[in-house]
Amino acid sequence: MTAIDPGPRGAIDMTHGAGGRAMAGLIRDVFHRHLGNAYLAQGDDGALLGRVEGRLVMATDAHVVSPLFFPGGDIGALAVHGTINDIAMMGARPLWLSASFILEEGLALATLDRIVASMARAAREAGVPVVTGDTKVVEKGKGDGVFIATTGVGDLADGVAISGAGARPGNVILVSGTMGDHGVAILSRREGLAFETEIVSDSQPLHDLVAAMLASVSGIRVLRDPTRGGLAATLNEIAHQSQAGMVLDEPAVPVQPEVAAACELLGLDPLNIANEGKLVAICEAADAEALLAAMRAHPRGRDAAIIGEVVADERTLVRMRTRLGGMRVVDWIDGEQLPRIC
Amino acid sequence: MTAIDPGPRGAIDMTHGAGGRAMAGLIRDVFHRHLGNAYLAQGDDGALLGRVEGRLVMATDAHVVSPLFFPGGDIGALAVHGTINDIAMMGARPLWLSASFILEEGLALATLDRIVASMARAAREAGVPVVTGDTKVVEKGKGDGVFIATTGVGDLADGVAISGAGARPGNVILVSGTMGDHGVAILSRREGLAFETEIVSDSQPLHDLVAAMLASVSGIRVLRDPTRGGLAATLNEIAHQSQAGMVLDEPAVPVQPEVAAACELLGLDPLNIANEGKLVAICEAADAEALLAAMRAHPRGRDAAIIGEVVADERTLVRMRTRLGGMRVVDWIDGEQLPRIC
Repeated sequence: MTAIDPGPRGAIDMTHGAGGRAMAGLIRDVFHRHLGNAYLAQGDDGALLGRVEGRLVMATDAHVVSPLFFPGGDIGALAVHGTINDIAMMGARPLWLSASFILEEGLALATLDRIVASMARAAREAGVPVVTGDTKVVEKGKGDGVFIATTGVGDLADGVAISGAGARPGNVILVSGTMGDHGVAILSRREGLAFETEIVSDSQPLHDLVAAMLASVSGIRVLRDPTRGGLAATLNEIAHQSQAGMVLDEPAVPVQPEVAAACELLGLDPLNIANEGKLVAICEAADAEALLAAMRAHPRGRDAAIIGEVVADERTLVRMRTRLGGMRVVDWIDGEQLPRIC
Repeated sequence: MTAIDPGPRGAIDMTHGAGGRAMAGLIRDVFHRHLGNAYLAQGDDGALLGRVEGRLVMATDAHVVSPLFFPGGDIGALAVHGTINDIAMMGARPLWLSASFILEEGLALATLDRIVASMARAAREAGVPVVTGDTKVVEKGKGDGVFIATTGVGDLADGVAISGAGARPGNVILVSGTMGDHGVAILSRREGLAFETEIVSDSQPLHDLVAAMLASVSGIRVLRDPTRGGLAATLNEIAHQSQAGMVLDEPAVPVQPEVAAACELLGLDPLNIANEGKLVAICEAADAEALLAAMRAHPRGRDAAIIGEVVADERTLVRMRTRLGGMRVVDWIDGEQLPRIC
């Protein structure tokens, strides 16, 4: 620490949200220092972004994950990945992000600095800049450290038509990798559980994988990232939107042995557990093998697998052939299994 | 209440953020019921919006106002107006909004319903739909009822170049109406103060006023809404961005007598108090009278006034000729005068 750049120290107080000098200092010393780019440098209450080719898409997510730091990630990186992935799941290319921070009085500035630095790194690695932001401060006991709402905009190329309503009987269901890593990583940190191998979150951006998938075949009908509620909730949502049923093959669903063991221990089903760097794809049967190969050829889809198929079923049930040869319904959970997972 | 439409009842619990049936029900019965439009009906994790003419602009704001309801508005309408205004202050046309909700466990569903209904009304009246959203729930004591982060996108016509860096010596400074109404309305509700005349927030969308202003003259250089920190903070920001000074004329700054009296009583300066439905415009001197006339001709600019001018000043000071003929510096506040005003 030098006199020129003392760096962040101390803690957030109510003046940091008051629109005066303290807020201007925070924006300069933390947000602009890490996230700095030509858009933020415009210094206005919004950002001028330029022209967009194709059709515009927009997605938003609030992030309230607890704890703020967890194996494989933190709320800053997660807030970037989560919204990039929502844009990518429409088949679109994420272009720009906004970020709104709600800070709790008393939050250590060093903690905020670390979160914003991680956010900046995630945005840089993904090639999607944070172009505009906002900061509010709430009194101690009226928040929980930091909440971050991110919104993304992107463009969708002509001819791409991806939607949760697009699944048709005969289509094939794929996932891009192992299920449950993020939720179990959060839970193990929260509960202080130690496993032989540390389970780390899969938090990662999926837009490059999606671009590779869209370039490989034309028959992709649905893309979605199985976050809250896990694969079970996501497939039930799609089944409902598409008015079709699904049949999964249990042994085909990739789950890391450590995650399976932790779930067994905790009485959880990996299919209900949130992921933050995996996707579900549903495609025409003729394209399934080529799509699987394209996914496996990409570093973010190495463990991709075909896990089942879409069937005609007016009850829109998601069912699974179990390892023992039975058939069970994969329902979405009613209650709260894992609060504040993202 | 009937068996068909029981309406919202009870309170938010952790299951409403869990990605399961309870969350789907909340989205359907509260968010889609009020905000419903073709974009939300797409039912995907983001919205497909179509093509954008001109250059894209983007702005975001988190809203943490306390209390949630106040004279002249509530957090729902404010979250719509605030972000529409940020887009409008770039000279752009707001097109679409996203909304991320952070709900505290225990929040009455009836309260949320009232807020979302107000948000929907504000969006409808402004002609700017909420196209995509997200909901998270945090444990009781980790939030404060409801926080709403909204993000807006809009398009900027070619040839329009509005920026806080655009003020030049000789330019004229205007405001669209009285200063301090919003902050004093919040404060009076929060502190339980009763005045002879109820002071109501000026919370309103300004994009139609801005469109009328841009159509009237070509010489508008700067637009900004004096929210947190009030007119004083906003003019100091612009002075700094433009590297110029400003001289205001105190008697010319419109302040409602009730607001002036309340500020006197509370030891506050109306120039430091937040507004949520007013703008500052800086324009070339030759256009000032025509711009003033255009503003006064619009229902949202009836009390517009010319309040001062931009001057060459490398110290970038904002100064004011007082009623008594003196000159004082209008500084932005260092401390926290009014927390959680927006």
